[in-house]
Amino acid sequence: MFFSEYKEPKLSGERFSVIYKLSGNEKEAYEKAKDLCLEQTVEFPGELLPDGAIRDSIVGRIESFKKHDSMHYMATVSYAVETSSNELTQLLNVVFGNSSIKPGIRVEKLLLSDVILKNFKGPRFGRDGLREYLGIKNRPLLFTALKPMGLSSEALADLAYKFALGGIDLIKDDHGLSNQSFSPFEERVELCVNAINKANRETGGKSVYVPNITAPFSEMVDRARKAKELGAGGLLISPGLAGFDAMREISEDENINLPVFSHPAFLGTFVMSNETGISHGALLGQIMRLAGADATIYPNFGGRFSFSREECESIAVCTSEKMGNLKPIFPCPAGGMSLGSIPESLKVYGKDVIFLVGGGLFRHGPNLIENCAYFRKLIENIDLKEIF
Amino acid sequence: MFFSEYKEPKLSGERFSVIYKLSGNEKEAYEKAKDLCLEQTVEFPGELLPDGAIRDSIVGRIESFKKHDSMHYMATVSYAVETSSNELTQLLNVVFGNSSIKPGIRVEKLLLSDVILKNFKGPRFGRDGLREYLGIKNRPLLFTALKPMGLSSEALADLAYKFALGGIDLIKDDHGLSNQSFSPFEERVELCVNAINKANRETGGKSVYVPNITAPFSEMVDRARKAKELGAGGLLISPGLAGFDAMREISEDENINLPVFSHPAFLGTFVMSNETGISHGALLGQIMRLAGADATIYPNFGGRFSFSREECESIAVCTSEKMGNLKPIFPCPAGGMSLGSIPESLKVYGKDVIFLVGGGLFRHGPNLIENCAYFRKLIENIDLKEIF
Repeated sequence: MFFSEYKEPKLSGERFSVIYKLSGNEKEAYEKAKDLCLEQTVEFPGELLPDGAIRDSIVGRIESFKKHDSMHYMATVSYAVETSSNELTQLLNVVFGNSSIKPGIRVEKLLLSDVILKNFKGPRFGRDGLREYLGIKNRPLLFTALKPMGLSSEALADLAYKFALGGIDLIKDDHGLSNQSFSPFEERVELCVNAINKANRETGGKSVYVPNITAPFSEMVDRARKAKELGAGGLLISPGLAGFDAMREISEDENINLPVFSHPAFLGTFVMSNETGISHGALLGQIMRLAGADATIYPNFGGRFSFSREECESIAVCTSEKMGNLKPIFPCPAGGMSLGSIPESLKVYGKDVIFLVGGGLFRHGPNLIENCAYFRKLIENIDLKEIF
Repeated sequence: MFFSEYKEPKLSGERFSVIYKLSGNEKEAYEKAKDLCLEQTVEFPGELLPDGAIRDSIVGRIESFKKHDSMHYMATVSYAVETSSNELTQLLNVVFGNSSIKPGIRVEKLLLSDVILKNFKGPRFGRDGLREYLGIKNRPLLFTALKPMGLSSEALADLAYKFALGGIDLIKDDHGLSNQSFSPFEERVELCVNAINKANRETGGKSVYVPNITAPFSEMVDRARKAKELGAGGLLISPGLAGFDAMREISEDENINLPVFSHPAFLGTFVMSNETGISHGALLGQIMRLAGADATIYPNFGGRFSFSREECESIAVCTSEKMGNLKPIFPCPAGGMSLGSIPESLKVYGKDVIFLVGGGLFRHGPNLIENCAYFRKLIENIDLKEIF
């Protein structure tokens, strides 16, 4: 009665799904599932919806509903692909926009059909592309960070030089280095690229510099292009600060064409609770991959953060399992990793992993180049057959 | 010993602070506070830091530490303004980047000094500007949303026409309307602007259309400018999807110059727990204001979401309390509000509020224009003196 100009929306019939974990007894959880179907789409009283395609197909649909444990149920809810508007921003809104504001709803897994994934290019390099780009065939990749914040660009470049001399493959800015007065972005990129190139000439190796381009909206693309122009070999982005779609845009930019490393800053709250938010695998595996990261950084188990081994494994699974035509990406465990924890981590991740060791490289001994070389040798000498 | 090119960073001595709520007994909470000081800045082993300004001033500083209740302590930690790089993205990183990934840490309040706030323009219109823009002196403002998703642009425009005839001041897209095939962005904006203008000519009123411009990174500014060109009167943005800095950029754009309404989609997880995330007031009051919103939409108490009256009050306080030169903004309670709940809400918010009623306008009776007129009359006839 309210919709005098009503015309049926044309829909393809194609759908994608999301698995939600819902808290409560069976009745409460089922009410939550029904509520999700409205809340994530029409946001309108169900009884007042017009009959036809909106009610039947735009509104989410409960595809399955199963008991998970005594206080949780798992509901698979499907949505018409058209609701996503072929946009990452709106897709994330359909997945968890309003329902993020309701208690007892957690996104467990995205089940994105090939039809919807065709709208997303995903990572440009992926695992194989990054290995080829760096010329590293089989072993795990080595990653470290320039810090502490407050050092001058010269001091950071000196660290970069030593890291490269020691054989670290990827040398990134700490994610808190932006464009501060003590180390302006362009100056830092130029000095660090030059320092790493100098080391590469001396060693014959191929270390690359990965500056942090997380920046104000209007400067992100400029910083990425400037980094490329100055010789950077990859880009670090914190999508929790800059937006997931900013990362996707940078990763797809033909003029930039550099591997992208995602950092989880400001996103941790999503994974802090079993009752709300988004699962580790969906957020740090699936969504990062969908948003164009070639490698996803997250805190490893046993470090100074709280992720469990199982949570880290779930992220790793999501980096490589089938996801339409999207390339598999590297898991990048970090966050207070010590060199001693590497063997145990190899059991979890196998060889397709990037180990990000920051402070741990400094802690190992008084000579930074030797510490790096030790890290490199540790990785090169590991016989994966012995571990498995 | 590691920093051979070490040079002291030059710092102004100006600092800003953040109040964190920390879980645990006194010793555990104090360890968390000390850890925050490193984690949010240098992310480096404290014992290996060089002596001087990095250790003394770049590292966060515990300014106060107090018992809150039997299991929580409140710590005020200050940071050098230079750590923020004068950027909203990096400021948010210093406030809660890595520590969002650790359990038992919640951002309670930002204490931003005038020095740091000078880097941010904040809302362009604010409360007074929006009242002047709409020509509404004293009463609360009325807001509604075009929905359900799936309607054609013609049907949405017809709704907009009726809402305007009924005297609703602000008529926005539902936040899930983007650029879907059944209602493409430009088509919708053109038809809704025309429909509302027609109603304004008939009533002599001034309703305005507020399209949703939350969009892919590369399209946000274009959509905002196109909306302006086509005659939109405001812009809806979900910074949880598009990034806080995308909203700031749009609000500061001289060529756009329209009021900005922030929507909390995808941000709910931050406020779902008392132990982690960000407080309601800091996120939906302070950060939205800092990021340029002229009005902050959030679910009101007593609706279909779970915010308490006290949580809503805390948001309202943060919209108007002193924050450097940043203008006060409108609280915009929404989310399943019924018309019947308006008087109670007025007691909380006073007259400086925007009531966003969506589905409730349809539920009131069979004639949408009459329902709107009832809402308008309800607001106009309320004697605030009687309420207080």
